[in-house]
Amino acid sequence: MLPFEVMQQVHNEWFSWNQSGLSAVEISHREKNFEAMIHQTKDLLRQLLAIPENYQVIFLQGGATLVWSSLPMNIAWGKKAGYVVSGMWSQKAFNEAKKYLNPDEVANSNCNGFFYDYPNPAKWNINPEYKYLHYCSNETIQGIQFPTIPSIDIPLACDMSSDILSRKIDVTKFGAIYAGAQKNMGVAGLTVLIIRKDWLDLNHEKSNLIPRTLNYQNVSEQKSLVNTPCTFAIYVCNLVLKWLKSLGGVAEIEKINNQKAMLLYDYLDNNDFYQTTIKKEARSKMNVTFKLRNESLQEKFIRESDSSGLKQLKGHRLQGGLRASIYNSMPIAGVETLIDFLEDFAKKNN
Amino acid sequence: MLPFEVMQQVHNEWFSWNQSGLSAVEISHREKNFEAMIHQTKDLLRQLLAIPENYQVIFLQGGATLVWSSLPMNIAWGKKAGYVVSGMWSQKAFNEAKKYLNPDEVANSNCNGFFYDYPNPAKWNINPEYKYLHYCSNETIQGIQFPTIPSIDIPLACDMSSDILSRKIDVTKFGAIYAGAQKNMGVAGLTVLIIRKDWLDLNHEKSNLIPRTLNYQNVSEQKSLVNTPCTFAIYVCNLVLKWLKSLGGVAEIEKINNQKAMLLYDYLDNNDFYQTTIKKEARSKMNVTFKLRNESLQEKFIRESDSSGLKQLKGHRLQGGLRASIYNSMPIAGVETLIDFLEDFAKKNN
Repeated sequence: MLPFEVMQQVHNEWFSWNQSGLSAVEISHREKNFEAMIHQTKDLLRQLLAIPENYQVIFLQGGATLVWSSLPMNIAWGKKAGYVVSGMWSQKAFNEAKKYLNPDEVANSNCNGFFYDYPNPAKWNINPEYKYLHYCSNETIQGIQFPTIPSIDIPLACDMSSDILSRKIDVTKFGAIYAGAQKNMGVAGLTVLIIRKDWLDLNHEKSNLIPRTLNYQNVSEQKSLVNTPCTFAIYVCNLVLKWLKSLGGVAEIEKINNQKAMLLYDYLDNNDFYQTTIKKEARSKMNVTFKLRNESLQEKFIRESDSSGLKQLKGHRLQGGLRASIYNSMPIAGVETLIDFLEDFAKKNN
Repeated sequence: MLPFEVMQQVHNEWFSWNQSGLSAVEISHREKNFEAMIHQTKDLLRQLLAIPENYQVIFLQGGATLVWSSLPMNIAWGKKAGYVVSGMWSQKAFNEAKKYLNPDEVANSNCNGFFYDYPNPAKWNINPEYKYLHYCSNETIQGIQFPTIPSIDIPLACDMSSDILSRKIDVTKFGAIYAGAQKNMGVAGLTVLIIRKDWLDLNHEKSNLIPRTLNYQNVSEQKSLVNTPCTFAIYVCNLVLKWLKSLGGVAEIEKINNQKAMLLYDYLDNNDFYQTTIKKEARSKMNVTFKLRNESLQEKFIRESDSSGLKQLKGHRLQGGLRASIYNSMPIAGVETLIDFLEDFAKKNN
């Protein structure tokens, strides 16, 4: 979902963006005011995440999935890198990296086919020759989140698609942070890459094989406008970042996110009807996965929750069970409504 | 611009798509009805372009620019292919292909730094070993369009970004047709690839280096849902295709496009104040490029046309002059309004 204020604004200015007489989806990305809006969006991100001067913000297309390919291509083609596997997304990133290098699987928290915990960084064996160590800060399918940034001595590369802007981070721990926009930054079509500037000095023997729109140095030099970007997704991202700023920024949304997650997990923990499966310290504050103890009621639960306006509570098809996604734009009232429904459903079916 | 009916429908159902209670920009691409809409969009394209059974319609991200890379990667990596250069887009496609093969420049209509004509296919020297011959059917910057599909004995690969669905085509002449959606199919964020099914049998030694979202065989097998697509662009494309179908399809829009182009070129030809620069047989019916004979009036022209609601008439920054883009969604009345303005401006400044 998008913040209601953002939904409203897009609707209000649908036929004429910024008094231009054209819709935001009709304007050329080269139009002066529109291009200014694109660059303002990067500046808003810089402010909200306190991104230091020696980092570049780049807009890409193709989703985080394409970064799984372009990151090793750009940064470590033929070199060494470490990958941590904590769920499906980091597993897929690891598999894709094998095309371009021989990545080490530094840790894997898979336990008999399921993930219940995040891999403990204290146990990781880091080769100092790694160009980077890759991990995924929040696994949406399992509902597993790293509680803090792993403290290791080489730069991190992180798929932060599903928890970027949900809590404060120290950007200096990272060589690269990337994220699709569709969770906490708006809608699908925009991929954000925050990259340390010295990582843009591409100079390896395979760099001439990187497609021009995936070559980070080239995209950076052309200010993220190598070709027509998904203008609508950038426009929506701009509005979402302004909304977040007006709310008080990342520090403020972090408090709200903590409160939302605490409310929901507390309810689930103090209840015999539902059950959570992820270890306490690894629980995601964005995607709360849980089950009915009596799983035969699952179909009924999904039908009834959907018809009372609680959408998309079904767990990922690869995981089963139930999942409540409570990204930044979900207000506390949304979580309270969910808990009311859970309580009501439990009473009626116990 | 988008058809007014499409703009209106997006606005009307902004807060609840298809009675779902969710906006089209908030629904998961895996939701049953939404996924059905995605596949319906491909079917609409099949109908409108009479695409035969032995072709696959694939949705990609990244724009035509990324296809300049992925096409040679998938189809001809390390092999031979021919490229025709008729303007900036086909020039860039040719340059990008050099990363993956040693392409032959089969023809180049550049004349002292400018393009005035399309390269005549009768003069092309085709090596039968070419995997494909690549060209761009319409060069938006120069305003040059191939009047017909080149008749040669090997499969064509065509960047049809700016004139797809503007006129009938015989798909069987092509191995691949690709197009960004933002001209005649909606908004940026969706790239359409129409590809002959036997071209999907990837089996070359470099195919393991192709990113998974750019591997045509993989994308086809996963029904264009390898990862989250730009759902908004697909949704708008769906509406645009329905609008085109309701209008009578491609045959009908072709008549309207011919009429629009004829009106505008006729006016420009019978007038001392303006001047066209492209040879008659090579003139684009999508992008009409022209100049003021007195070029010192250009700034004034752009200022006044813009303030009377005729937007974006300035030529591309690399070409100069003026350009009227009259894609499918521009009604005849829009061209008539433009001609009225041209006439009025000519009278006042002659």
